[in-house]
Amino acid sequence: MDKQTINQLQKIVGPDQLTTTTEELLCYSYDGTAREYLPEAVAFPGSTAEVSAIMRLASQVLLPVVVRGAGSGMTGGALPLKGGLVMAMSRMHKIIEIDTDNHVAVVEPGVITGQFQDEVRRLGLYYPPDPASLKFCTLGGNIAECAGGPSAVKYGVTRDYVLGLEAVLPDGRIINTGVRTAKGVVGYDLTRLLTGSEGTLAIITKIILKLLPMPTNRATFLVVSNSIKQATALVSRILSQHTPCTLEYMDRTALKIVESELPFALPPAAESLLIIEVDGNQETVTSQAKNLHIFLKNEPDLLSVRQAQDEAERAALWSARRAISPSAFKLKPHKISEDVVVPRSKIAELVTFTETLAAEQQTTIFTFGHAGDGNIHVNIMLDKNNSEELARGLIAKKKLFTQVLNLGGTLSGEHGIGITKSEYLAMELDENSLELMKGLKNLFDPLNILNPGKIFPPDQTSQKNI
Amino acid sequence: MDKQTINQLQKIVGPDQLTTTTEELLCYSYDGTAREYLPEAVAFPGSTAEVSAIMRLASQVLLPVVVRGAGSGMTGGALPLKGGLVMAMSRMHKIIEIDTDNHVAVVEPGVITGQFQDEVRRLGLYYPPDPASLKFCTLGGNIAECAGGPSAVKYGVTRDYVLGLEAVLPDGRIINTGVRTAKGVVGYDLTRLLTGSEGTLAIITKIILKLLPMPTNRATFLVVSNSIKQATALVSRILSQHTPCTLEYMDRTALKIVESELPFALPPAAESLLIIEVDGNQETVTSQAKNLHIFLKNEPDLLSVRQAQDEAERAALWSARRAISPSAFKLKPHKISEDVVVPRSKIAELVTFTETLAAEQQTTIFTFGHAGDGNIHVNIMLDKNNSEELARGLIAKKKLFTQVLNLGGTLSGEHGIGITKSEYLAMELDENSLELMKGLKNLFDPLNILNPGKIFPPDQTSQKNI
Repeated sequence: MDKQTINQLQKIVGPDQLTTTTEELLCYSYDGTAREYLPEAVAFPGSTAEVSAIMRLASQVLLPVVVRGAGSGMTGGALPLKGGLVMAMSRMHKIIEIDTDNHVAVVEPGVITGQFQDEVRRLGLYYPPDPASLKFCTLGGNIAECAGGPSAVKYGVTRDYVLGLEAVLPDGRIINTGVRTAKGVVGYDLTRLLTGSEGTLAIITKIILKLLPMPTNRATFLVVSNSIKQATALVSRILSQHTPCTLEYMDRTALKIVESELPFALPPAAESLLIIEVDGNQETVTSQAKNLHIFLKNEPDLLSVRQAQDEAERAALWSARRAISPSAFKLKPHKISEDVVVPRSKIAELVTFTETLAAEQQTTIFTFGHAGDGNIHVNIMLDKNNSEELARGLIAKKKLFTQVLNLGGTLSGEHGIGITKSEYLAMELDENSLELMKGLKNLFDPLNILNPGKIFPPDQTSQKNI
Repeated sequence: MDKQTINQLQKIVGPDQLTTTTEELLCYSYDGTAREYLPEAVAFPGSTAEVSAIMRLASQVLLPVVVRGAGSGMTGGALPLKGGLVMAMSRMHKIIEIDTDNHVAVVEPGVITGQFQDEVRRLGLYYPPDPASLKFCTLGGNIAECAGGPSAVKYGVTRDYVLGLEAVLPDGRIINTGVRTAKGVVGYDLTRLLTGSEGTLAIITKIILKLLPMPTNRATFLVVSNSIKQATALVSRILSQHTPCTLEYMDRTALKIVESELPFALPPAAESLLIIEVDGNQETVTSQAKNLHIFLKNEPDLLSVRQAQDEAERAALWSARRAISPSAFKLKPHKISEDVVVPRSKIAELVTFTETLAAEQQTTIFTFGHAGDGNIHVNIMLDKNNSEELARGLIAKKKLFTQVLNLGGTLSGEHGIGITKSEYLAMELDENSLELMKGLKNLFDPLNILNPGKIFPPDQTSQKNI
């Protein structure tokens, strides 16, 4: 990046809001994938007008721009693969409006998801999407990736809560998509096209979100089983008769990793834990909990069925659940972490497959995740510096993807493609769809300056690379 | 259309599945707008391969093609504006699969919505979208328009139930979008881009739908008020404390139109009826109904609060509700029927506005619809053959749209733009969004042969018109 461009960027955001020092650049060079790419500069725009001005400049000088929320993404969406400018949205963190009459909120992209949930909860409202990183990830990042979380089994994913967006196109033009009402079908659905587009089509500068009334009550059940197949086979049967707001599972290895943080002792034969929650008002939760308890008690061969006694026990449990991913590094210094989805009736089959795969590739593979919607986090543990281990890990990854697709599943439920899955994209998408998607990228970003190198495998794109 | 093209079409679908006789063409010349455009031929493809072959041919000879489900659309989506070929999807009406373990169905586009709902209900499952035309409209048409219905207040619209699609592009290529799992974020969201695209981007040939467990119980409340403002002001307050699966209202004129079909006598001072339903299992419905009853009984000044006594009473009520739109012609031979949406806290303001507008334009305007999500059906009654009445009706329509947008609303909640709203599109969408949407149309359909002339106002499109 030349001096003139840096000067112009400084003029746009102010001298304090642009950095090029190596120490600071390093802070914006990594994300949840633990890969690193150093940007040439980081800008902290404070308004849509500044974002627009940056993109007009970037278009003129063909500067690659990568937007960054909290950098908690799992597939490299926020990594400046081609160097250039990282646009950090941390200053655009205002909750602009919470409309309690209409259950709508308007926010800037840098708002922390968990803080937003706390704010709306104080007003009796509920924003369901709850990725494990909710204490630090941002709403803008959640929308870029279409984040999910445990609540998705009942409440759906981020996509289901985005009513409208303000966004800046790669050439600096501003668009307003969608509505601030529950319904709206005017023109093509740009709102959902941008949601999950991994920061490659436009820069989200304002978000209109749908809210729900806050469920006042909740009951949490912990089901320990000595068979992962038995546990996962329960999932479809639970969902045919009950409507839990969470249906998570952990396998034995996941349990071991966080055992010391669990608020109760595990029976020695524990092979799997299911976490099942129901929510609603006091009466409906009492009724649902009663029915669920009867159902679970009638299941033969479960090691234990326990109801969380209080909010502290529940909080401890969830804290342990959210710690699985970071705590996995106790096993090995690196992991290949996938968020595949299979039809939930196929979870047991997938889990069996990963066990065989682990034995075959002489590696540790553990699984946990959102059993209710078949979204399984598969973790292949390895030391990347051991090239043979890495090679076996990559073979396991490819075989896993093949099996997932054979089972009628998809390569990603909530993390997106980014760079970690781009070379596998054509395993799932047909050639015509892929070509259309490249056409979409080219329509929005003909100069390929916005988050270049993401989603599409490098050798397959016909776009101009910078 | 020349003889050679007709011969080639006959070769593709078989001689019995193509018609060019005027009597038959007439049956495919109109839709729910009561406008008429005669096609030159109607083809009845029986498979995706046939649809693909037709589009390859259409691309070669620049033949306009309009896809038709049941022709029940309200904005002209199925009208062959430029002549050419109507592709009627009535033969592609198979329910291919209902997966009860995973709550997923795969269907062809010609399946009737209501019949599909009945089929899945037999298996204990529920497909919520319920447009008033559900007894004859098709799932393909519902997806093309992103149809809604009374259940949307709790369950969302068609978009929320479409997991994946098979579709034929205007050049005949076939794409498979989305997933058959609850989650999926691989590549850009072509599924939601096609949903609501009004048959202008691709031809839907297969649909993967999400299903829910069927709620076993339901309670229906009828609330009669002597003030439309009082009734609509109740809406936000009900939704802040309750989660009804339906929250509809009718104004006095709507009530009068269907009064003879209502299963109970109206008090003479009735100005508005609210229909409120809750659903769930027996225990949760009992609890919800009790709370709702207490809430309503504590409301001062309501003329009556009545709970439907049995399924027959409820069915009669809904039959009357669905009859409003067709029965409106008792008042005048034509109507301008809009499905605007406003934030639900603004419904009373909108209703007051329509009363003033009716007086000002010396016309009858009545409103009813989905109060829970602010989606109000506004009907401006007129005789189109009376040019002065028509002119006043169109002035009222424009003024209505201006007010709806001023209130933070949108021009269409579930009917789409088609031809009846295309000239008003730029009132809602900004120039940059409009240009992007035209770019999307051009990306999918560079020859502009698929449903040409829809959505975009004719003088504003830069596309080649055939």
